Parts: sequence; structure tokens; C-alpha cells
Amino acid sequence: MAHPGTDRIWDTLIVNARLATFAPEREGDYGVVNDADALAIDQGRIVWIGAAADRSARHQAAVTIDAGGQWVTPGLIDCHTHLVYAGSRAREFALRLNGASYEEISRAGGGIASTVRATRHASESALIEQARPRLRALMREGVTTIEIKSGYGLNRDTELAMLRAARHLGETEAVTVRTTFLGAHALPPDYAGRADAYIDIVCDEMLPAAAEAGLVDAVDVFCENIGFDVAQTERVFKTAAALGLPVKLHAEQLSNLGGSELVARYGGLSSDHLEHLDEAGARSLAAAGTVAVLLPGAYYFLRDTHTPPIALLRKHGVAMAVASDCNPGTSPYASLLLMLNMACTSFLMTPAEALNGVTHVAARALGMDKDIGSLAVGKQADLLFWQVADLAELCYSYGTHLPTRVLRAGVARSA
Amino acid sequence: MAHPGTDRIWDTLIVNARLATFAPEREGDYGVVNDADALAIDQGRIVWIGAAADRSARHQAAVTIDAGGQWVTPGLIDCHTHLVYAGSRAREFALRLNGASYEEISRAGGGIASTVRATRHASESALIEQARPRLRALMREGVTTIEIKSGYGLNRDTELAMLRAARHLGETEAVTVRTTFLGAHALPPDYAGRADAYIDIVCDEMLPAAAEAGLVDAVDVFCENIGFDVAQTERVFKTAAALGLPVKLHAEQLSNLGGSELVARYGGLSSDHLEHLDEAGARSLAAAGTVAVLLPGAYYFLRDTHTPPIALLRKHGVAMAVASDCNPGTSPYASLLLMLNMACTSFLMTPAEALNGVTHVAARALGMDKDIGSLAVGKQADLLFWQVADLAELCYSYGTHLPTRVLRAGVARSA
Ligand SMILES: [Zn+2]
Ligand SMILES: [Zn+2]
Repeated sequence: MAHPGTDRIWDTLIVNARLATFAPEREGDYGVVNDADALAIDQGRIVWIGAAADRSARHQAAVTIDAGGQWVTPGLIDCHTHLVYAGSRAREFALRLNGASYEEISRAGGGIASTVRATRHASESALIEQARPRLRALMREGVTTIEIKSGYGLNRDTELAMLRAARHLGETEAVTVRTTFLGAHALPPDYAGRADAYIDIVCDEMLPAAAEAGLVDAVDVFCENIGFDVAQTERVFKTAAALGLPVKLHAEQLSNLGGSELVARYGGLSSDHLEHLDEAGARSLAAAGTVAVLLPGAYYFLRDTHTPPIALLRKHGVAMAVASDCNPGTSPYASLLLMLNMACTSFLMTPAEALNGVTHVAARALGMDKDIGSLAVGKQADLLFWQVADLAELCYSYGTHLPTRVLRAGVARSA
Repeated sequence: MAHPGTDRIWDTLIVNARLATFAPEREGDYGVVNDADALAIDQGRIVWIGAAADRSARHQAAVTIDAGGQWVTPGLIDCHTHLVYAGSRAREFALRLNGASYEEISRAGGGIASTVRATRHASESALIEQARPRLRALMREGVTTIEIKSGYGLNRDTELAMLRAARHLGETEAVTVRTTFLGAHALPPDYAGRADAYIDIVCDEMLPAAAEAGLVDAVDVFCENIGFDVAQTERVFKTAAALGLPVKLHAEQLSNLGGSELVARYGGLSSDHLEHLDEAGARSLAAAGTVAVLLPGAYYFLRDTHTPPIALLRKHGVAMAVASDCNPGTSPYASLLLMLNMACTSFLMTPAEALNGVTHVAARALGMDKDIGSLAVGKQADLLFWQVADLAELCYSYGTHLPTRVLRAGVARSA
């Protein structure tokens, strides 16, 4: 834990902190460091963790922050969102609750088709400005890294526009954005009954164009009885592999098609939803080191009663992440702290599991755990300060807890 | 809709507003006024509503606010909370999720007994300061009136301290606080097996002392198989009636004891929870004009699967309110906007029902509908501005919507 560099003056020294590192190599629920109360940051990275009293006199800092005994954690990571889209489904929501049938809503232009239509008709700057309040709501809660998927364009130009909008948000807000190409999210109306032909376009045109433009950090598919089947999914995965892109999957949400085995076979980063995962699937995820991403917002909003098999995931040692799935159709929640409560309340995850699920496990689900998700020397200095007695408080109650301070790559971010 | 007074210059004129009055005498879901886009405030009250173009030249305003086409609604009313208490149950929450049995948690000092112990040991200023962040979280969402119950003291001195703390919060924050005496919330440990003896103390000492001190706006009882029975409840109601205080009831949450019939018989303001209400109960509430207060946070946190009988309440025309029930044991949610989403998602209430339930129906549940809960001439000018296309948005999505402006009794409140 010595300072790796020279006698350079550190940018920032944090003292009087309770450090919850969430570093997997540490013991205990939150990777708490009992023998250290200080952390140094230089050039955006954590360069030293230790007891303030043990700090060598050589090591001075330009700025010292007294944490006043507050908890300090890694920045939160929302590793599964559909944040960029246009329009609102509020009217459809009201119609449905007023007793309109599925057909009536469909005739009124509802469902995912309405989001696709609005997204196709929106300018790129409209996509950016409509997503920004959702992003800011998440950032206010301490999110420092967020994954954003495409998937409401379902044609080349709009899929690329969505991904560019996501990149632009990452460049204009103090947050790291990771993009995922989800061209195979749903079948566009113009391809009704011709799913294989649509997958041709996804593999031959859309994904290569998006990758070529540098807009794709990972590739995802909605593998489901109402989405794409395993063979279609595998075609997209093969294209991703040929392009050198990692894969992840919407799998086992409404039925079990064996998507988790498939994504594990491709060494995928994550398999997401998993309400209907079986033991073979859990075993595959464990063997491949693929993260299970659990999405309690969608579970809640859909009034689902079939919880993901947490016991199976624990039994096989599958790492579990928790994310907002923020999207207009099935999880209209721009809150990761609410997801912590829901993961514990609906899925009976422990607070430690939930909090690990929005820090280092979420980083793994994005292939970024070398860089973020825990407090350790060498990691990017994405840090949150929390004025709570016990970190379980962040999972137990909702509404009153926001980070009192956010550092992103070592730089203070205004709330 | 003419200005009732003289040629006095109004304090404030709001123009270019979409007015959702929630006034029960108006047609339509939200009491929208289509032929009016302006509202005048004087001395803290609404004095005129109309079309800006129709305003008489006599009527000038000291301040004009351009709402820019935003929706303007009444302030939100959280008509059922247990906001004042000491301590946290986060550790107990974590223990339970880590597999501790009820006995182990009980031995570790958990359950309501732990909140009673912490509350009894807290100073009055500690009670105030621990409740304040919860209150501010609700205020940030647009709450301008809140009910706060006692019930974690379970002895005279602490019950009075809780009620004084609630009053103090109302005096030091720009929010109206309505107090409810809930001495009969649970049996204190020192009265184990002697519920009737405890009710003696409640009726003979605690409630009269609290009323004498001017600390009680209404009286409530937890009538339940794990609380107090109907006969005990009625003794408290008789005492309340003798003191001239209105009553309300925690009823039919876990079982049906006929509490709703009882509270209706006493002309009660509200019957709250109601998961197990039957048709006879719904009929009684309707006949008495007693409001049904629905609490989706407790339903969610307790993983209840038995929803309140919304269809029955609709059938009999029982007015429905929605509240946070914010409390450490069963609804640790300091968010009324989240409750709007949960009322629609879990209870399948319509957005109009949910929004009426936190405005004019919530005002009725507090006996305050003459004064607040709707936009009409003569009402207190508690007003919220919302930058949303459709008010259903406040129920459908969660995380991004906060009022852009709050007026409380005509005065701007800082967010
Ligand atoms: Zn998703
Ligand atoms: Zn209650």
C-alpha cells in the first residue's frame, strides 16, 4: 500500500473516513478497511490507502478533505439501462389502468412501437436532451458509470444516433458512459414475420457500421419467446466475436430458452433478468464467470411474481449485479438507490449483495473491474461520501440518503 | 370567479398555467380548467381563477409569475406518516436478510420495541433532528401538508414529546403539520398481557394530557389481531369524542376485525390500510363519508400479496387517499411520488385516483378539505408547478420529476 510513485505532491488526501472498499480481495460484507482511515488521489487515481498516522512525511497533498467519519464507497455503477429514447408512455400507462385492452392500447399507438416511432422521429439532440434528466437523477444518487443500450431505433441510422447520443452524454456530464448495441431488441414493424431477415441486417449492416464508428463497447440481444430465439442470438454473438466485441444477454426473463448457457459459451460479460434461470444455466454462468444482472424495477413494474433464483445463484457462486433497467416500457425508474431497496425487499438479497451489485460486480458486468467498482490503489478515484451510520441504511430506507460528496476521477462533482 | 374583495393589489398573479384544480366539483380526471390560465393569490389565499385575458384592469398584482405552460396543482398532502421516531432498523433489516430468525432479531433488540426504546431515550431535539431529513425529502417532492402520528413512546411523556416534536417541525419548516395521537399503537413491554390496563392509561392519562396541551388534531388506534381489539379501540374513540377530537383507524391490514364499521360509526376521518376490508366495511365507509387511506409502501415492504379491494371501494364510492405511511418498521419510504407509482403499479389505481388521493381526498382524510387540497377561490395557496406534458407522468415514472416551484400559503419555498 505504499505510494507507487515519487515524492510528487498528491492532488487530494481524504482523512477521517470509514472506507468501504468493495474490493473482492478484502474480507467482510463491504470490504471495510478497519486499519485505514485515509486515501490519497493523484491524477484521477487512488494512489494510497492507509492510516493517516502512518503516512510518510514525504507525502503531502494539495487538498485535504476531512470526511468527518463518514463512509466512503466507490461510485455507483448502473450496468443495465435503456436511458436514451424519445417520448413518454405515461398516457399508455393511464389508458391501461383505466381498463383499456391491449388491442385498444395498440391501436392508440402504444407499446414498444410507440417508443421506436418517437425515437426514429427525434433529432439526435432531442434524444440527448430527453435522456439528460434521467441521467442527472441517477448521478444525483451517486452513479459515476452507466451503461446505455441502443434498441429503440431498429434501423441503422437511428441505432447509431442513439449510441452517439449516449456517447455525447458521457462527454458532457461528469459520468462514464458505456455503450451497448442492442439492435436485436425487438422486431421492427417493417420486418413482421421476417425475424431472420432482420437479423441479417443487424449482423451485416447495423452492428458493423456501429462498431466501425467506434460506438459499441458491448453487444446485447433480447433472447425471449417474444424476442429472438437462441439461433438468432448466436448469429449476433458470432458477428460480435468477429468484431472483437464482448457480449451480454437479456435472458430467462419470461421463459427459459437456455440463453444463459449460450452467453456463457461466448464468455459473455453478463446475463440479465434471469427470473426463469434453471440450475444448468446457473452452473454455466458460474463456470464462465458471467455476471447475473438482476433488475428488480422491471420485476416490480410488470407485477411479476416469479423471482430470480437467488439461492441457486448463491449456491453456484454466480456474481450478482443490480441495475435500474431504466426504460419506458418495463422499468420507468431513474433511481439506483430504489433498486437497492427493491433487490432486498423483492428478491431478498442481502444489503451486502445489493451494494456489491452496484459497485464491483456491476463493474465486472461491464468488463471494467480493473478500473472501477472498488477502492484500491490504481483504480479510478470515483468516490462517494455517505452520512449514514450503517451502509445497510442505503438498502433499508429510501428517500433521505444522497451522497454528501461525489468525486469522479478525483474531481468534485456538483450535486 | 370574480375577485371577492376590493381593488387591493394582489400579492401574486400566475399566468400561462395549465390549472389542475383537483376540485371535486369540477369535471374530469384532475379538475382541469380549460377556460382559465391564471390564478391570483392574496394574503396567502387563492382569490381569483380565470383567463388572464378576462382579468379586470382594476386587478393588478405586485408579482406576476409566468408558468410557461407548466401544470399547476395543489400542494401534495401526505395524510398518514409516523415521521417522528429515533434510531434506525437498518441493522435488523440486514440481519433478517442474512437469515436471522424472528427470535434472534428479537433477542438482538429488534422490532417495534427497538424503536420505542430509542424514541424513549432520545431528547425532544434529537427526535426533531432525526425526523427533519425525512420531512425535507417529502417537501422536496412537493408535500405542503403532512400528518405525523405519535405511537413510539407508549408512555405519557414520550408520546407528548413526539407530538411536540411534530408541532415544532411544522413551526420551523414551511409545511403544515397535522398531529395524530396514536398512544394505542402497540402494547408497551411493561404492559405485556395487560392490554386493557394500558388502554386505561391511554384514555385516563395520556390522551387527556396530550389534548390538554393542544397537541392533538386527531386520534388513531392500531386495531388488529396483533394490536388492539374493537372493544379497546372503541374505548379510545369514546375518550376522543368526549374531548371533541376526530378519529381515524389503522384497520383491516392483516385481518378483518370490523374496524372500518367502528370508525365509520364514530364519523371517523379515515380508515387506513384496508387490505382485508369486506363489502360491509366498504358500505359503512361510504355511508359515513370516511376516507379509505391506502398505503402501498407498507404493502410492498411487507411483501404482502393481498391488495386492498379497490373495486369494492370504487363500487361503493368510497374516496381513496394515498399516503407514505413513512415509518421504520413497515414503510421506510420518505417519498410520496414513489407511492403514486406504487398505488398504480401494485394496487392498479388510476393516475387520477392516485393524484386525487394525495390532494383533495388526502385533505378530507385530515378534515382540512375546506382549506387545502384543491385550487379554488378561498383555499390556501399551496401550489406546485410541474414541467411535464401529462400529469399521469407523475405516477408512471419515478426519479426525474420534482416540482419546479413550490408556493406554500402563497410564499415561494426553496427546494
Ligand atoms: Zn433491459
Ligand atoms: Zn401507519
